[in-house]
Amino acid sequence: MKKVKGGITKPKGFLGSAIWCGIKHRKKDLCLVYSKIPAKAAGVFTANKVKAAPLIISKKNLANGRAQAIIVNSGNANCLTGKAGLNDADVIAKSTARALAVKKGDVLTASTGVIGKRLPVLKIISAIDKLASTLSSVNSRDIAMALMTTDTVPKETAVSFKIGSKIVNIGAVAKGAGMIHPNMATMIALITTDAVVTRAALKKALKEGVEATFNCITVDGDMSTNDCVFILANGIANNKVISSTGENYRIFKKALTTACFDMAEKIIRGAEGATKFIKIDVRKAKSVNDAKKAAYAIATSLLVKTAVYGEDPNWGRIAAAAGRSGADFKGAELDIYLGRTKVLSQGTGANVNKASLKGLFKKRDIEISAVLNSGNESATIYTSDLSRKYIDINAHYTT
Amino acid sequence: MKKVKGGITKPKGFLGSAIWCGIKHRKKDLCLVYSKIPAKAAGVFTANKVKAAPLIISKKNLANGRAQAIIVNSGNANCLTGKAGLNDADVIAKSTARALAVKKGDVLTASTGVIGKRLPVLKIISAIDKLASTLSSVNSRDIAMALMTTDTVPKETAVSFKIGSKIVNIGAVAKGAGMIHPNMATMIALITTDAVVTRAALKKALKEGVEATFNCITVDGDMSTNDCVFILANGIANNKVISSTGENYRIFKKALTTACFDMAEKIIRGAEGATKFIKIDVRKAKSVNDAKKAAYAIATSLLVKTAVYGEDPNWGRIAAAAGRSGADFKGAELDIYLGRTKVLSQGTGANVNKASLKGLFKKRDIEISAVLNSGNESATIYTSDLSRKYIDINAHYTT
Repeated sequence: MKKVKGGITKPKGFLGSAIWCGIKHRKKDLCLVYSKIPAKAAGVFTANKVKAAPLIISKKNLANGRAQAIIVNSGNANCLTGKAGLNDADVIAKSTARALAVKKGDVLTASTGVIGKRLPVLKIISAIDKLASTLSSVNSRDIAMALMTTDTVPKETAVSFKIGSKIVNIGAVAKGAGMIHPNMATMIALITTDAVVTRAALKKALKEGVEATFNCITVDGDMSTNDCVFILANGIANNKVISSTGENYRIFKKALTTACFDMAEKIIRGAEGATKFIKIDVRKAKSVNDAKKAAYAIATSLLVKTAVYGEDPNWGRIAAAAGRSGADFKGAELDIYLGRTKVLSQGTGANVNKASLKGLFKKRDIEISAVLNSGNESATIYTSDLSRKYIDINAHYTT
Repeated sequence: MKKVKGGITKPKGFLGSAIWCGIKHRKKDLCLVYSKIPAKAAGVFTANKVKAAPLIISKKNLANGRAQAIIVNSGNANCLTGKAGLNDADVIAKSTARALAVKKGDVLTASTGVIGKRLPVLKIISAIDKLASTLSSVNSRDIAMALMTTDTVPKETAVSFKIGSKIVNIGAVAKGAGMIHPNMATMIALITTDAVVTRAALKKALKEGVEATFNCITVDGDMSTNDCVFILANGIANNKVISSTGENYRIFKKALTTACFDMAEKIIRGAEGATKFIKIDVRKAKSVNDAKKAAYAIATSLLVKTAVYGEDPNWGRIAAAAGRSGADFKGAELDIYLGRTKVLSQGTGANVNKASLKGLFKKRDIEISAVLNSGNESATIYTSDLSRKYIDINAHYTT
């Protein structure tokens, strides 16, 4: 398996297009992804009790495990818009199906942006014909740009691998800047593959791949109402079918997870106001759940995030966050490492060279490990720091 | 019951003093509270698994329900300092007992400040005689100042009330600026009363009073390793004894809760970088726990806090936070109010005048209500906004 150039239109038989339809201020805000033939499809959705209208429509359209196109707008989330909003999302999906001459239920849709405002449906519908007529295999970057809200860079990736003698491709675009927290976040990822794969294997690989990547990142602890990941598999690679077990599944899942991790890492590196990429390992926890709890408590601690921003190796805040996480351990048995330097040993501050610690925190990539010494389970979470710029961005987005 | 002038030295028989002993940079950093006679005593401590050394010593010294003095330093938390740190806290308590000629176990101690550094014990011990010789009944404000770390203002309060014909007083000082979250926070409150009260009633009233006040505030979601609330009751008011039930208990608890709420409100108003005081009501939840979960999710949402800072009535973020809180409700049944204006009705954005909403958010005090419509329980949480100044303060505190 290797990373290759390209993005969502890298897999064979996928085309895309993007346009400015008038939701955002003179920036692309609507995009279309299309498979030349109907594809197997799967999706993962936000766990938020408040779900945006397009997710409800897409979930319905995914019930038969098949789709041929995805249409996404940015700038408006079509969330908390009631029945009218549901109808808006449905009309957009159906209009797209009509323009592409695909089956009515074979279009998925997603939206991202401000919550609580009706979509300008007419603007969107008027733009669909143009989207359909400009479909091409070189538009991945434009599609990634059309997904952006407060994102600073477009995010795309592609990997290629072999199943037997056949080359198989996976491509993806994603958006996400703030409101990023496990069980998705203001995060949309669209993934395509030309693999021949059973519906069950596609669903399973997506679920497991998302769990290990997108569900291990957090920017600000806020989980969005609009998160979704869609994958379409059109089978044009003509490989031996990938089912839910065995070596081919393993290869496919690894490639899919690699593509998802690449997107997840780009989301964190491009997070609102982020100046650092922080990896948090919690080890020797009593349970995986405990390890995750402690890792998230550290990752979402404003005091830890501001200390990293200030390049201040204030490990006391890391210990305090782990201590309040609900994970079961004894304060007097806690070890903490910054990079490879042990700064806390059995609950007692170690005598370490401060200058070298400071040097460690001047780097762009920061590694924090907390060893709870109460079991054998572990978890890793990725996050960003919290800067003045995050505040500036989020104090004034909307209305 | 009425609020009166004064603070921790308002109740009869209590004296105090404060001094600069050399931990902070030329600011008072050590204080002493003393009762002329041994007092009944109770305490509430942080739920953090990582507990600072002085808390462990104070818990031990509180076991007999009696104390006569409290010594507190700021600038250094004496936390994650191992056995040496425990010994430091014990030596400080014992030296204070000796200087005051009180029983060895009758001194409580607390520390607040940087985690993971040994206390300068000699500086503290050398200052104790001076503290003991300058005890007076007019030092409450100095004591409040000696507790401050990143606090911008000293916090003190006093209330008087009658039990029968006797006037009874409660006085308090507190500190807390960041790392404020339920089950205490970087929060220390010292409370005195001249009430005659049973040990059981004192414990119960403190627990209930803290639960309804200090445990209902959050600044940044971080719970400290050093939080504690101590109360001493010396009985000099000579009132009819207050036991754990009945009218006198009700009066005492109300007065104590009033004093605690006043401190809690001052902590939020004086929170790091705070420009707003936010009251969050969650109503019609399935359980009190659900109501609290939703209220905390809203109160700790960076997106909600930055929106309030930016005076942007972005209620979609409030709905999204409630939706991810884990509270059981349906997105399509959610109502949200900003002040008295209903902005979301049954999961659908209401048609409201934006200018009036913006006006609402220009005020210093903001009221947010989320009505889950899934039961009959409610909870109220108080918090502050998240400003650039919070980042500046916390990016560079320590090392």
